[in-house]
Amino acid sequence: MPPAANGSGQEVNKKDFKAFETTPLHNRNPYQPVPDFLSNVGSFKIIESTLREGEQFANAFFDTAKKIEIAKALDDFGVDYIELTSPAASEQSRRDCEAICKLGLKAKILTHIRCHMDDARIAVETGVDGVDVVIGTSSFLREHSHGKDMAYIHKTAIEVIEFVKSKGIEIRFSSEDSFRSDLVDLLSIYKAVDKVGVNRVGIADTVGCAGPRQVYDLVRTLRGVVSCDIETHFHNDTGCAIANAYCALEAGATHIDTSVLGIGERNGITPLGGLMARMIVADRDYVLSKYKLHKLKDLENLVAEAVEVNIPFNNYITGFCAFTHKAGIHAKAILNNPSTYEIINPADFGITRYVHFASRLTGWNAIKSRVEQLNLDMTDAQCKECTAKIKQLADIRPLNVDDVDSIIRQYHLNIKTGGDTPLHHAVPGLSAPPTDDLDNMATDGEPAAKKLKTELSVDAPRCC
Amino acid sequence: MPPAANGSGQEVNKKDFKAFETTPLHNRNPYQPVPDFLSNVGSFKIIESTLREGEQFANAFFDTAKKIEIAKALDDFGVDYIELTSPAASEQSRRDCEAICKLGLKAKILTHIRCHMDDARIAVETGVDGVDVVIGTSSFLREHSHGKDMAYIHKTAIEVIEFVKSKGIEIRFSSEDSFRSDLVDLLSIYKAVDKVGVNRVGIADTVGCAGPRQVYDLVRTLRGVVSCDIETHFHNDTGCAIANAYCALEAGATHIDTSVLGIGERNGITPLGGLMARMIVADRDYVLSKYKLHKLKDLENLVAEAVEVNIPFNNYITGFCAFTHKAGIHAKAILNNPSTYEIINPADFGITRYVHFASRLTGWNAIKSRVEQLNLDMTDAQCKECTAKIKQLADIRPLNVDDVDSIIRQYHLNIKTGGDTPLHHAVPGLSAPPTDDLDNMATDGEPAAKKLKTELSVDAPRCC
Repeated sequence: MPPAANGSGQEVNKKDFKAFETTPLHNRNPYQPVPDFLSNVGSFKIIESTLREGEQFANAFFDTAKKIEIAKALDDFGVDYIELTSPAASEQSRRDCEAICKLGLKAKILTHIRCHMDDARIAVETGVDGVDVVIGTSSFLREHSHGKDMAYIHKTAIEVIEFVKSKGIEIRFSSEDSFRSDLVDLLSIYKAVDKVGVNRVGIADTVGCAGPRQVYDLVRTLRGVVSCDIETHFHNDTGCAIANAYCALEAGATHIDTSVLGIGERNGITPLGGLMARMIVADRDYVLSKYKLHKLKDLENLVAEAVEVNIPFNNYITGFCAFTHKAGIHAKAILNNPSTYEIINPADFGITRYVHFASRLTGWNAIKSRVEQLNLDMTDAQCKECTAKIKQLADIRPLNVDDVDSIIRQYHLNIKTGGDTPLHHAVPGLSAPPTDDLDNMATDGEPAAKKLKTELSVDAPRCC
Repeated sequence: MPPAANGSGQEVNKKDFKAFETTPLHNRNPYQPVPDFLSNVGSFKIIESTLREGEQFANAFFDTAKKIEIAKALDDFGVDYIELTSPAASEQSRRDCEAICKLGLKAKILTHIRCHMDDARIAVETGVDGVDVVIGTSSFLREHSHGKDMAYIHKTAIEVIEFVKSKGIEIRFSSEDSFRSDLVDLLSIYKAVDKVGVNRVGIADTVGCAGPRQVYDLVRTLRGVVSCDIETHFHNDTGCAIANAYCALEAGATHIDTSVLGIGERNGITPLGGLMARMIVADRDYVLSKYKLHKLKDLENLVAEAVEVNIPFNNYITGFCAFTHKAGIHAKAILNNPSTYEIINPADFGITRYVHFASRLTGWNAIKSRVEQLNLDMTDAQCKECTAKIKQLADIRPLNVDDVDSIIRQYHLNIKTGGDTPLHHAVPGLSAPPTDDLDNMATDGEPAAKKLKTELSVDAPRCC
């Protein structure tokens, strides 16, 4: 028996409605979406495909031990399903599939096969909890890949589904290249497989061409045609894989395919970490209740090492700069209240934010914060003046944290001892700022009014 | 005078309608969006902010020479606007701004300032073509950043806009953190600045929280309130920066902010290359007519070197695997017709596709293609058998291209000379496959019928 359509989702949605109705209007974010009975944003499941889609990544070669290590890490993270390469792909793939099924993980184990009885017969013998079948339905794939017509696809799909169900195993039927398939063909085959009791139907943007509003429309249309669950799979060629997953959930999809770092064919699919970033903003309680987010970084490092890539500098959550704040205005506001420029709390992922202050874009609030960290005693006016000097020196060459600390300490020493050691002497190899700069900036010994005016240019207008 | 709302867009849209109306139904992609008068997907402009938002990236420190080099490269690529750091940020920023204005580039030069007369007075003296002003309108920013109320924002905005316009310079007014601002406040200030003749209003998802359907709704609502152009700026914290830009254009936005590789505060904004990937799928003619796409790779390398990051492995278009195909079914179809698994033609960007064949996931079509490249004479049946053997050996350890070439050559030599040298001897250090594998796979000397059956497992079921 297939699970009730949209099952757990509706309960969560009812909860959302209740929360929305009881929140006073003035406390609502005007652009927070009004809760929607169709939406599964607060009740999605993850089908983690690092060991299937991810194995198709150019650099992936997982041996048995590595596959087991990754499967255990995914299970520990809390994914609902782990999808494995077809046992029909090679003898080793079959043995690895059997080995992972024997681990006794909490996650359900799936394997991904062609919609063909030969593959299905091999798959059901491996011990998997479910089988994901797929066949190309677009004219592109029907003509240039498998060469079958829709009548053949219908017949084979039903034969395979009934066979797999007869073994007591979950079965999903997916089209391939769904967004370039004929809509009537698509809905017709989905309706037919739903009728024979498939557990999930799948929509796949195989080439990464779909836009978010197209995804919403197709999933919403499909939601009206089938009663089973809806799984979605999005490639990232045109940068919409996370957004498309989100819009699919908004339209009633129940399951999202991911891989760690998004690895897969070409530039890959919806990344697990990126999806977490998106979903924690949409429903933090649900995400925190299901997934061990503080394990994300280790999981990504494990996979990155296995496929010999670096974590991208701009990676969601775990990229080195994901929680780094540089501009003056940003730094000031973040120090006041992190929600001003952060929609995600890095602590949810076991990560620390970093306020950048060693640049000419720094603001005096960041310097003041550093002064406090260094346990120095300086007034606000002094912090502002010191900031102006740091910005001047940062115009000459990049300063690192040590450089800035040295400048702050020298400035502090000067004010405490009445000394006038030029601040650039505190940093080996740094030359004096040009004189015309000095004329335009606040300098030692100027009246307080002039110093205060410096704040305007110190809090550099860098925002959004 | 502000340009007519949605000006050039409407002409292009009319062209799209014409094309749509005259395309026979059976030739239409059922999920290609029906053309929409609101949409500017075929007529957008780029405001390139590598030298403003990008300068706020943690690793960015551009000296004057580097800024000029980047500005020239952006101009050569064909961006419509280049946005620079505020001249009020530091003395060097002001000088750099003046220097870039003097280059005589085709792109219009903008600078980005706080909505404040002090900054505006400095900005209009630099020689820029336009000024982008911004002020935080969300309660978060009003409370924790600048501390001003909406009445103050209105008054200052109009003062600054009238001053900048009086100098004959383009002016944009943007809110900051627009998606957490009160909708009535937002529309009210936009309506007021439109009335005094601002050239563009800007929407900024400063914290990266917005979803694509929220963006569509807000831009579409705004399109009904103002007659000026609409610029949008999306941070990528939750992975929607490209999708949001696309949906903004669908809803009638006219200008998109980008930076090279997306560099900016935290993990950055809509990347120029990623936007190109998205838009070339939406309107290839328009994108090819405006932008020198074959310069993208050099431009990205220039910026990546300047900020000392690696191009992410999965970068749009230029990542090392963006056009690499590995799975058997994919490789087969790609060799038949690249459109099957590629929505972007790599040649448009001066890039070559790569069909991966040195793995256990390879298919015989990929091996056949390689056999032809090596100028060897083998039948299809022989290619299939050779593929089965390569897959067996690739189960033992990863094979590189040279390994596979050696195996193919040894196989070819065996069939031409009647020899039976084991194929793993062709690769130094490779051991023989296990005997049970050999029993399950096609081997030399088997009848043709048995060999042909191997194809099913050779064309591994890896798709979507």
